[in-house]
Amino acid sequence: MPANVGQEIKIGLLGYGTVGSNVFRLLEEQSEEILQSSGAAISVSRILVRDAAAAHSGAPPELFTTDFGEILDDDEISIIVELIGGIDPAYEYISAALEKGKAVVTANKQLISQQGSYLFELSRRRQTQIKFEASVAGAIPVIRVIRESMAAAGIESIHGIVNGTTNFILTEMTRTGAEYEKALDRARELGYAEADPTEDVEGLDAAAKMAILASIAFHSTVGLDDVDCEGIGEIGSLDIEYARELGYTIKLLGVARLYGDRVNVRVYPALLESGHPLSTVGGAQNAVFIQGSAIDEIMLSGPGAGGMETASAVVSDIVSIVSRRTPGFLEYPLAYKQLDFFPAEEVETTFYLRLEVEDEPGVLAAIANIFGEHRVSIESVLQKGRGRHAELVMIFHPVKEKSFYNALARVAELPVVKATPHPLRVESNGHG
Amino acid sequence: MPANVGQEIKIGLLGYGTVGSNVFRLLEEQSEEILQSSGAAISVSRILVRDAAAAHSGAPPELFTTDFGEILDDDEISIIVELIGGIDPAYEYISAALEKGKAVVTANKQLISQQGSYLFELSRRRQTQIKFEASVAGAIPVIRVIRESMAAAGIESIHGIVNGTTNFILTEMTRTGAEYEKALDRARELGYAEADPTEDVEGLDAAAKMAILASIAFHSTVGLDDVDCEGIGEIGSLDIEYARELGYTIKLLGVARLYGDRVNVRVYPALLESGHPLSTVGGAQNAVFIQGSAIDEIMLSGPGAGGMETASAVVSDIVSIVSRRTPGFLEYPLAYKQLDFFPAEEVETTFYLRLEVEDEPGVLAAIANIFGEHRVSIESVLQKGRGRHAELVMIFHPVKEKSFYNALARVAELPVVKATPHPLRVESNGHG
Repeated sequence: MPANVGQEIKIGLLGYGTVGSNVFRLLEEQSEEILQSSGAAISVSRILVRDAAAAHSGAPPELFTTDFGEILDDDEISIIVELIGGIDPAYEYISAALEKGKAVVTANKQLISQQGSYLFELSRRRQTQIKFEASVAGAIPVIRVIRESMAAAGIESIHGIVNGTTNFILTEMTRTGAEYEKALDRARELGYAEADPTEDVEGLDAAAKMAILASIAFHSTVGLDDVDCEGIGEIGSLDIEYARELGYTIKLLGVARLYGDRVNVRVYPALLESGHPLSTVGGAQNAVFIQGSAIDEIMLSGPGAGGMETASAVVSDIVSIVSRRTPGFLEYPLAYKQLDFFPAEEVETTFYLRLEVEDEPGVLAAIANIFGEHRVSIESVLQKGRGRHAELVMIFHPVKEKSFYNALARVAELPVVKATPHPLRVESNGHG
Repeated sequence: MPANVGQEIKIGLLGYGTVGSNVFRLLEEQSEEILQSSGAAISVSRILVRDAAAAHSGAPPELFTTDFGEILDDDEISIIVELIGGIDPAYEYISAALEKGKAVVTANKQLISQQGSYLFELSRRRQTQIKFEASVAGAIPVIRVIRESMAAAGIESIHGIVNGTTNFILTEMTRTGAEYEKALDRARELGYAEADPTEDVEGLDAAAKMAILASIAFHSTVGLDDVDCEGIGEIGSLDIEYARELGYTIKLLGVARLYGDRVNVRVYPALLESGHPLSTVGGAQNAVFIQGSAIDEIMLSGPGAGGMETASAVVSDIVSIVSRRTPGFLEYPLAYKQLDFFPAEEVETTFYLRLEVEDEPGVLAAIANIFGEHRVSIESVLQKGRGRHAELVMIFHPVKEKSFYNALARVAELPVVKATPHPLRVESNGHG
């Protein structure tokens, strides 16, 4: 047996919702496994809650406190686990903990995507650690894999389905033919969407996660504000139907990619070819697909953020911290490259476009002319009659986004075009 | 910047085939990334080959030697990377290196699955490290994920497609309807199968990998000899066809599972339901599907062992060793539980059986009677006429394997049964 088995590690838990109570439970239930892998007996000695008098199941009442200072000043507590979420007061608590040299584990994607670089630098300066595996893709250990297993893989792109709510909604729309609103209601019923689903359906949640993944994959600071983001609210059941006819599935995709030595990170709904590894990721599942110069492709998939999955990721971070006495280099997500951003408008993209138009002669020609003038080349057109109106379903050859949107703005002004067009992007395969 | 950037780490490389030369190249090409993630300048200072005079591309001639002693006695070399393969002399070299306190990285699944527990204990005793990510599933970091990310996940089962050759052959048989021999020839043509494919097609390669995964997942010693193993040689194109009719795909599966506190590890061809996450893993891909008490399911997939993928896994192990100065607990794959084995004959299994029988009245009744006497219950029967003979394609309700095989032995003795029956197992879904 290793010599230092028997060390005791005390944890201060901030927040005691689903994840917090599962962290507490896992640390108790898996204590033998954890002792063996970390060499330490790890236990929660203090839990911060809003109301200590409220009933909190699973943990002894005397552990609860409403005073963060009590936890911060407890020198026996060496690890703070932050599960409050949001920026305020999580930011203040985590900063104070790191300043005191305590290690931090957090599941807080908002905070890491917005204040990560400051917190990483602070943890480095104070010779301690901050870990955040649970902030992206629940129990799928994508952060560890990127930081540790792919250090020499020369990562070039990451494609992710990292938001379970939107993936559930799109899967439901595909499965049942329902419109967006109805699928959203269903997601709410089943607990996959919150009452206010804005963060999820507008892609902000996915954007925060992609910012985190891009930062660690490319060793550069990518904040939430650096991620262009489109949601799924404009996708109609007709888009889903036409996509299927053409051999595609629509998914909300996070894409982080190097263009030479510049970075582009975006979130948008995309048509995936049916052979694409991410096309079969259904329901509330998450998946991340990583490509690099030395590695063709790796995919990790699993359940998104359930309480138990997130708790398991938090515990694995705790074990990892405890197992490494001496902070080494891998402890700090170093952004030693300060890469520039590659502008979205310069990206070459394959577009899908559904246009609702008057069903009269010459309409297609007028539209095709405008695209032609902007050197935007049409690969295929499907014409669908719908009563007095017709629908044109078009796929384009790859083109700079700027050119496409310039042409589209002019097309949208044509009197024969009946509704604001919402183009979607196409990911042709796993190697795009 | 971390304080100890600039440390120099010297590596002794044993073997300079495809993987070895790619390791050399990656260490050069990714030196900046590696310096940043490990804090050290890592370089190869000696390379062991059989014939130093032969042309070895990519590395300066003065690095090559045919004398292992030269590498072992070089105190500047702190890490030995073993890429010779096989037991002999790899075992001797690795043992000697560990004895001297050098760290070891190896891609040698035979050695780890047969001598792993001795080597782990030796590395612990000498306070050094042995890492072997590249021994299973190429660049897919399954060992790291199991050891580090899932320490508290309570792993209960691992299902893997961990042999690219057999997965290519079965995919080819499914795609083209070809018989086994023809698909094997095609695999040889494309470089997916060796001239002598025994290790692969009989499941021994997969068995070695599953032994390694089971050992680290269950913290118990599982050697190659503890793995029951069936190959794919008996699978006919008719099995593939009938499986497809019934909604299944046939894959060579490695299964490691806990039954209470006992372990069962096996490799066998199985019918996977089309919804099973492993059913879509095609060609020479590898995938590992992990289930635990705290985690519903995680899947990792990617290319199997290509030279570059394996090299990338080797380099990630090197970086990991260099990044942790103080050996911690996670350095040793501890088999602190010595679990008993759960006998295969006690496992409850769903069987598929194709029987070639005389096409005469009463045959099915005779067969059903025998199964009934052994309390083996038939779920469905398809009868297929084939000239004078008929084929019965049967799926059974889950049953102890012992009962099934006892019944089958009697069925096989019936004069109306024309060929030795080869039952296959069915994995009903991802949660079986």
